[in-house]
Amino acid sequence: MALHLTSKRRLDDTVLERDLTLDGVPGILWTPASASAAAPVPLILLGHPPLGLHAMHPRLAARARHAAADGFATATIELPGCGDRPRWPALEQARADLGRAMRSGEPVGDDVIDALVLPLVDRAVPEWRSALDALLPLPEIDGPVGYSGGLISVGVRLAVAEPRVVAAGLFAGSFVPRVITEEARRVTIPLHVLLQWDDEGNDRQALLDLFDAFGSEEKTLHANMGGHTGVPHHAADAVAQFFTRHLR
Amino acid sequence: MALHLTSKRRLDDTVLERDLTLDGVPGILWTPASASAAAPVPLILLGHPPLGLHAMHPRLAARARHAAADGFATATIELPGCGDRPRWPALEQARADLGRAMRSGEPVGDDVIDALVLPLVDRAVPEWRSALDALLPLPEIDGPVGYSGGLISVGVRLAVAEPRVVAAGLFAGSFVPRVITEEARRVTIPLHVLLQWDDEGNDRQALLDLFDAFGSEEKTLHANMGGHTGVPHHAADAVAQFFTRHLR
Repeated sequence: MALHLTSKRRLDDTVLERDLTLDGVPGILWTPASASAAAPVPLILLGHPPLGLHAMHPRLAARARHAAADGFATATIELPGCGDRPRWPALEQARADLGRAMRSGEPVGDDVIDALVLPLVDRAVPEWRSALDALLPLPEIDGPVGYSGGLISVGVRLAVAEPRVVAAGLFAGSFVPRVITEEARRVTIPLHVLLQWDDEGNDRQALLDLFDAFGSEEKTLHANMGGHTGVPHHAADAVAQFFTRHLR
Repeated sequence: MALHLTSKRRLDDTVLERDLTLDGVPGILWTPASASAAAPVPLILLGHPPLGLHAMHPRLAARARHAAADGFATATIELPGCGDRPRWPALEQARADLGRAMRSGEPVGDDVIDALVLPLVDRAVPEWRSALDALLPLPEIDGPVGYSGGLISVGVRLAVAEPRVVAAGLFAGSFVPRVITEEARRVTIPLHVLLQWDDEGNDRQALLDLFDAFGSEEKTLHANMGGHTGVPHHAADAVAQFFTRHLR
């Protein structure tokens, strides 16, 4: 897979931000300014909801800064059918169906969740694995690799399928297909799961069932208040401590 | 309530441990060696299961050392009917009934839980409040006050009834009467709740229902693996960080 680093800028004196494309898939790479071939740093893949990298950039950059301060490079790529990538009619349809189901006030059916999430996971995970192939040879980056954030279903599939990912900090804030909860039983890496307890868009019981299903001997659930986007600072600090324990 | 400090020893160079009695109730007070009238420290009450202070001493002393390193005094008192305190036939009976119910393999009934826990809470909480009356005037101790540990039902009642307790780190590792879950709706102080996810003695759903019931705007649940006594080090560190945020 061809990696092109297309532009670069310093977020501040400590973090270098570079746009990239991987066979046409846009993404972003952040590295601590101190990272070098002589002092390479571990990599954390930053997962995100399917809202497009432009919209997500402020929050992704904040997470990247936090990680860089702990000595980690971070990278992300656009999800299929999102942002500047070609429209994907099946995804648009599945989104519309989910929106309609949620507005109806009825529980969202498994078929609606499956139709939205499973094709995204099936397409995205090979791309994230290819991103690892392309990024790990960079001189300033070295293993091991972590995955941090949502979509949690992408994180689960990566944790099962990608042996280079040795720890995952998962944001439990999206609908989870049952087949993903079944896959979770095969996850064995250390996990740190964030759940916003009062996130009205969550199916909390399904997310607790997912946490219960994970096969990992070391798994931690941190549930907090503050709604979907209100993760408290101390919870972000705890994620950072998790990755410091497992990637350094 | 008459406080008598009956003996003292240094646990190491940094923590002073003193036995105490409060109107005949035995207890222990730990203070950082650096605490003084000129530099008084906040107090954390250390809750514990009804197994007697002698049996619990190693784990209580470890928690006291951790707290002292963060600049906190800690204190605990014996629960009614436990340790060196006079036998309490109703408590003995309730314990025996619980043991029999658990050995039967059937779900433990509400009546068994109520009979064991509610009288303990009713008797213990006024004693813990009296302990505060006696301990807070000591020159090396100053408010605010935290409560840390189990019995979680004692912590809930204290959080509702005792305005000097401004933050609680609760160990969700014991049976909870339904009336306590109802009381939890009136708790408003910041809470940090520890749950051992794979604690086979836990009624996990009842403890999640309790967490859900708490009325506090700021509440955090940390669930980990490792069984009832296997709280990982990072989880103990997170409790310490919680108290540092709220008591300093």
